[in-house]
Amino acid sequence: MLNFSFHNTTKIHFGEGQISAISKEIPKDARVLMVYGGGSIKSNGVYDQVVEALTNHTWFEFSGIEPNPNYDTLMKAQAIIEAENIDYLLAVGGGSVVDGVKFISAAAKFEGEDPWDIVAKGAPVKAAISIGAVLTLPATGSESNNGSVVTRDGNKLPFGSPLVRPQFAVLDPKVTLSLSERQVANGVVDAFVHIMEQYLTYDVNGKVQDRFSEGLLLTLIEEGPKALASETKDDLEVRANIMWSATMALNGLIGAGVPQDWATHMIGHELTASHGIDHARTLSIVLPAVMKVRREQKRGKLVQYAERVWNITEGSDDLKIDAAIAATENFFKQMQVPTRISDEGIEQSYIDTWVNALETHGMTKLGERGEVTLEVSKQILETAY
Amino acid sequence: MLNFSFHNTTKIHFGEGQISAISKEIPKDARVLMVYGGGSIKSNGVYDQVVEALTNHTWFEFSGIEPNPNYDTLMKAQAIIEAENIDYLLAVGGGSVVDGVKFISAAAKFEGEDPWDIVAKGAPVKAAISIGAVLTLPATGSESNNGSVVTRDGNKLPFGSPLVRPQFAVLDPKVTLSLSERQVANGVVDAFVHIMEQYLTYDVNGKVQDRFSEGLLLTLIEEGPKALASETKDDLEVRANIMWSATMALNGLIGAGVPQDWATHMIGHELTASHGIDHARTLSIVLPAVMKVRREQKRGKLVQYAERVWNITEGSDDLKIDAAIAATENFFKQMQVPTRISDEGIEQSYIDTWVNALETHGMTKLGERGEVTLEVSKQILETAY
Repeated sequence: MLNFSFHNTTKIHFGEGQISAISKEIPKDARVLMVYGGGSIKSNGVYDQVVEALTNHTWFEFSGIEPNPNYDTLMKAQAIIEAENIDYLLAVGGGSVVDGVKFISAAAKFEGEDPWDIVAKGAPVKAAISIGAVLTLPATGSESNNGSVVTRDGNKLPFGSPLVRPQFAVLDPKVTLSLSERQVANGVVDAFVHIMEQYLTYDVNGKVQDRFSEGLLLTLIEEGPKALASETKDDLEVRANIMWSATMALNGLIGAGVPQDWATHMIGHELTASHGIDHARTLSIVLPAVMKVRREQKRGKLVQYAERVWNITEGSDDLKIDAAIAATENFFKQMQVPTRISDEGIEQSYIDTWVNALETHGMTKLGERGEVTLEVSKQILETAY
Repeated sequence: MLNFSFHNTTKIHFGEGQISAISKEIPKDARVLMVYGGGSIKSNGVYDQVVEALTNHTWFEFSGIEPNPNYDTLMKAQAIIEAENIDYLLAVGGGSVVDGVKFISAAAKFEGEDPWDIVAKGAPVKAAISIGAVLTLPATGSESNNGSVVTRDGNKLPFGSPLVRPQFAVLDPKVTLSLSERQVANGVVDAFVHIMEQYLTYDVNGKVQDRFSEGLLLTLIEEGPKALASETKDDLEVRANIMWSATMALNGLIGAGVPQDWATHMIGHELTASHGIDHARTLSIVLPAVMKVRREQKRGKLVQYAERVWNITEGSDDLKIDAAIAATENFFKQMQVPTRISDEGIEQSYIDTWVNALETHGMTKLGERGEVTLEVSKQILETAY
C-alpha cells in the first residue's frame, strides 16, 4: 500500500425524506443561494421539498446550469452573489450542478483577475463560499469530494480544492425515480468507470482498497440493469444501492493508498468537448480500449478483476482477460451505452483532433505510470473506433 | 438499506514516517498534553518521533494509562490540564490510550459535579478538548470514531460524542512491529468482531456495506495469521493491511444504514470487568456462542457469511452455517485466542455473576432487535463455557 492522507469532511444524510435535514445543516443566519439546472426539480417534487426545508432561511435561486457546466453560465451567478451577499450555496441537482457550484464558490472569492485561471492555470483556491448539496442523480461522487470539471470554449478541464468540498450532502434515492433511463444508465456507468480508474492499475497489495472497489463494481453490475428493467426500475432498494455506490466510488476512500489511472476520463473529456457526447458514454467507449491497449501493464489487475468481479476462474490468464474485457463491454451494452466511437456516428478523422486537444491541455503523460503518451492515446482512440 | 447519517471528520495520515505530520496538524500555539500508557513507546522509538515532531510546540506529558483505562487514572490528568492550560490532547498508544484520552477530554470540560456521569448516566458532552492520535496498536478503531469505553470499580461502560472524535490520526504500520504476538492477535480479533457486530444481523439489502464488511473480514483472515508467523511477521504490507482494516472496521462506515448487534461486546465487557480478561479474548469466547444461540435469527446472514467469507458453497444451509461457525472458531484458535470461558480457567458459577452485572448495567435487551434478554445472555454464556 502507498502512503496516503485521507480526509472527507462531508456529512451524509442518506434515505427517503432526508431533504428536510438541510434546514438544520445550513446556519440559520446564512444567506443561501439555491443553484439548480433545468426545471426537472420543479416537476419531481425536489424543489418543493427544498423550499419547505428553507422556510426559516433567507434564500435566493439561480438556475440554468447545463450538463458539462459552462464557465459563462457559472459566472452569471456572481452578480446575485454580490448583490445579495450570499454566503451559502446549495447545489440541487446532479454532478454538473454540484461541479458548477464548486466553481461558482471558488470564483466568488477569487482574488486574481480571471477566475478561469483556477481551472486553466491551477491558480490556488484560497477561499470559497460554503456548499451543501442535494443530489438528484447518482453518478459523479461530486457531492462529497473536492473535485470539479468545468467547460469553456470546447475546453473541459478539472480543478480541485478541499475548500469546495460540500459540508453536507443529502442522498435520497427516491428522487432518482424520476430520472430518464439514459440518466440512470449514464450514472451507473460513470460510477463504474470511476472505480476502475482507481482499481485497474498495478498491484500494491492494498487489500482493503481492492476489495472495496470490487464490492462496488459487483453492486453496480447487479443493480444497474435492474434500474433499467421495467419490473424493478421503481425499486427503492436498487436505487439506494446504486446511489451509495456512486458516492463511495469517488469520495477518496478507494483511491487512498493505491495508484490511479484517469486516462479514460481525460481522453473521454475531449470527445465531450468536441462532440457533446454524454460524459459517461465517452467512458464506456474509451475504457474497453484502455483495457486492450494497456493489457500488459495492467495484466495482474486484469486477471484479478476477471476472477473476483466476473467470477471467470477457468482457463489461462489471457483467456480470463479476454473474457473480462468482453464482460465489461457486455455490461455497458446492457446499460444501453456505446462501446465504440463509431456507435456515435463520428468520423475516424477526428482522432487527430482529439490527440491535438490532449496535447493542448497538457495531457501528454496519462495513466498510473504516466506512460500514456499522445501516441498511446491515439492507439487507444483507434482501438475504440 | 436503512436511513442513516454518516460523518467522519478525522484526517488520516497513513504509512511509514507519517508521525512527522503531527507537527502541522496541531495548531502552533496549542499547549499540548501527550498522553500514553506504559513505557513501550520509549523503547520502540515512537516517543522520540513524537518529541521530534513537537519541537516547535509547547508540550507536557501524562503517562500510565492502563488497558481498560481506569476512571481514577484518567482523572489524575485533570490536574496538569488545569495547571498548564492544556488545550490539545495527543494520544500516543492503542485503543485504551485513545479511549482514555477521550474521557480526559470530555471530563476536563464537564460542567456537572461528577464526570463519571458522562459514562454512568449518559450526561451530555457539551464541550471537549481537541484530540489527535498516534496509533500504535491496530484494533479498536477508536482513532477515528467517537466512542470510548472506561472502567471504574469493575464497571466497564461505553460513552460517545462527536466532540471527542480525534481531529487527526497517524497510522504508521511500522510502529506495530514491536508489538507482542498477543497484542497483534488481540488487535486482529477485536477488529474482526467489530465487523461481525455490524454485519451478522439481518438482511436489509445494504449491498455496499455487506461487501465492505466481507472485504475487511477476508483481509483479516488472510493477514492476521501472517502477522504471527515467523517468516511474515515483519512484513510491513501485512501490518499495513491489518492496520487499515482495523480502522475501517469501526469508523462508522460499514455500520451506516444497516442494523448492528453489539451483544458480544456487552457480554464480553463483563468478563473483562470481573476477571481482567483481555477485551479481544472475551470477544473470541462470546462470538461463537452468539452465532450458535442466535442461529435462527441470523440465519440469512450466516449463510451469506459462510459463502462469501469462507467460500463454503456446498451442502444445505445448516451445514454451511455449521462449517462457518467452525471456521470462525478455527480462525480464532489460529490467532491464539480462547474460544471458551473454560479455556480461561474460570468456574461456570460466575455466569450468574455476569448476568447480574448485565442487569445492573441495563444490558437487558441486547442485539440487533433487542431480543437478547438476560435469559438469552445466560444461554450464550452457558454455550460459551
